[in-house]
Amino acid sequence: MMSKDQALIAVDAMGGDGGPRVVIAALALALSTDPDLRFRVYGDEALVRTQMDLFPELAPACTICPAPDVISGEEKPSLALRRARKSSMGMAISAVKTGEADAALSAGNTGALMAIAKLYLRMMRGIDRPALTTILPTLGKNGVVMLDLGANTECDMRNLVQFAVMGAVYAQSAMGIPCPRLSLLNIGTEEMKGTEDLRAAAALLRQTEQTAFQYTGFIESDRIGQGDADVIVTDGFSGNIALKTIEGTARFITNLLRRAFSSSLRSKLGFLLSKPAFRLFRVYLDPNNHNGAIFLGLNGIVVKSHGNANVSGIAQAVHLTAKLVRSNLVNCIADDLDMFFSQASNKELQA
Amino acid sequence: MMSKDQALIAVDAMGGDGGPRVVIAALALALSTDPDLRFRVYGDEALVRTQMDLFPELAPACTICPAPDVISGEEKPSLALRRARKSSMGMAISAVKTGEADAALSAGNTGALMAIAKLYLRMMRGIDRPALTTILPTLGKNGVVMLDLGANTECDMRNLVQFAVMGAVYAQSAMGIPCPRLSLLNIGTEEMKGTEDLRAAAALLRQTEQTAFQYTGFIESDRIGQGDADVIVTDGFSGNIALKTIEGTARFITNLLRRAFSSSLRSKLGFLLSKPAFRLFRVYLDPNNHNGAIFLGLNGIVVKSHGNANVSGIAQAVHLTAKLVRSNLVNCIADDLDMFFSQASNKELQA
Repeated sequence: MMSKDQALIAVDAMGGDGGPRVVIAALALALSTDPDLRFRVYGDEALVRTQMDLFPELAPACTICPAPDVISGEEKPSLALRRARKSSMGMAISAVKTGEADAALSAGNTGALMAIAKLYLRMMRGIDRPALTTILPTLGKNGVVMLDLGANTECDMRNLVQFAVMGAVYAQSAMGIPCPRLSLLNIGTEEMKGTEDLRAAAALLRQTEQTAFQYTGFIESDRIGQGDADVIVTDGFSGNIALKTIEGTARFITNLLRRAFSSSLRSKLGFLLSKPAFRLFRVYLDPNNHNGAIFLGLNGIVVKSHGNANVSGIAQAVHLTAKLVRSNLVNCIADDLDMFFSQASNKELQA
Repeated sequence: MMSKDQALIAVDAMGGDGGPRVVIAALALALSTDPDLRFRVYGDEALVRTQMDLFPELAPACTICPAPDVISGEEKPSLALRRARKSSMGMAISAVKTGEADAALSAGNTGALMAIAKLYLRMMRGIDRPALTTILPTLGKNGVVMLDLGANTECDMRNLVQFAVMGAVYAQSAMGIPCPRLSLLNIGTEEMKGTEDLRAAAALLRQTEQTAFQYTGFIESDRIGQGDADVIVTDGFSGNIALKTIEGTARFITNLLRRAFSSSLRSKLGFLLSKPAFRLFRVYLDPNNHNGAIFLGLNGIVVKSHGNANVSGIAQAVHLTAKLVRSNLVNCIADDLDMFFSQASNKELQA
């Protein structure tokens, strides 16, 4: 008998740099703080069992589902699709389709995950393409939902508007913000800035009534982390550039800091004294604390963990997945899409 | 009698947040370390004279050129063009056209500066559009030349290839790198990644012989600051997103650091002890130390300073301008373009 709060997650145990060792430990960690979690674990049976034996408390919450094949990190999506049926990744997604699980989670190959998820789960009614979506930290009270982060190299006005509706629901589900402030990423805030598709999407979002979000105009990329927006919509090329630039700049600066602090004995001492402050700082910047991206627009929840996430990072992604299941994300998106497309002027924006 | 090393710069004294107060002090600072500099200073005569009186050593190196009008920071480029002739910005650029100066420098409105520079100086033979270009700091020995940073929202294959040739010469002139390593910014390093224009540009750069640079493939934006590339070519939209994301992330992280270090008495003490290390760190990140962007592709050198640059920032831009004059940047670009377009397969890439 399932409790109301139970969330049943299909987990690809073979994905990510750490494989079953890290994934299984993460499930145990997640279960320790959320006992209503249930897992179907897909992977090499012997490997999975060996790891499971280290966490006996997992046994009652887990079903092991042997998967004979693994999609590697380098596999091209087109090839991965052919081998999906017998792979841990493909079988986990298939469990969402058949209703055996509420959501799927994998730390494996992003391109393959998207291709398989698209094939098995299909796009939601009204949506042309899925958007890779995540929550980035900000200086404000909440994070910021950003999409698309690289699923679509080129996006037209219709894609951007569809992303906006889905991103707003995601901010409600994942961050509990009732009426998120939504912006379009652009290279200036004036109306005439950017591509034609961006300007058309802005014009449309400005005039749309009865949305579950508040459209607040263009935002420039130096303000992504300032807390001015709850949702930032962009094409997958720019979104990926922005995301990776954030990662690279953070790495660049922490490297500089390390150099600066090891430049003299005095600053080494200062560093030792400031260590707790640095720890706070690192906790904030550590991508493991913001782990978990989702492909929005599919008939089902598929969460992608960073490939190099550690145990606590993958546990973080498990909690996010459970939150999305419990908030009934997919149905909420469907409802909001219906409401949005029901406005006469938006009918042609539907896929 | 001009010495061989003299560089005569037409300076828009009215541009930027600080106006003549900051600009004139910057000229004095620059002159103190490079006595071969000469300036034509364009602006409100009374304002300029008041500031000049504070630095008597400037008098023999400066010609004051009264300009009755000023282009404001908010002025639309189309309107700025109409008022260019009598403005400090327009007159400074005009001096480059007439040969009265070797280069122009302004901290004013970027859009207006580009529009006026394009109108007065015209594009170089073979080039379709100008590219806003700057040098970003890296963890490597040198910085990295990046273009376009926002002059062109959309760029086709031809634009990208033209930017590549110009960016390589810029790395030679501004950083003294004989054969720069050049990459195209993309959302993955595999050949099939990115837009059609990017892939076509990559194919062409790969097969081109006798270039003054070494094409090293696609680069992702998390590696911009790692020192892997000397030149990174991108369209103006992505380039602007990347540049502003770097600025925003740096601000975000220094803000976090400030919070962390003021979180306890112990960490405040640690901060005091580490202050010299922090100073080193700040010097590296301070945009004033990397100030100065140029519109490549024009028949003349026009350097843009950050609007909010301080005295040392504008002095930095003055030194950069002098370096480009002395390295004969425009002629070197023209020579390399000729060499590049002379290869049979590249003929159609010429404007």
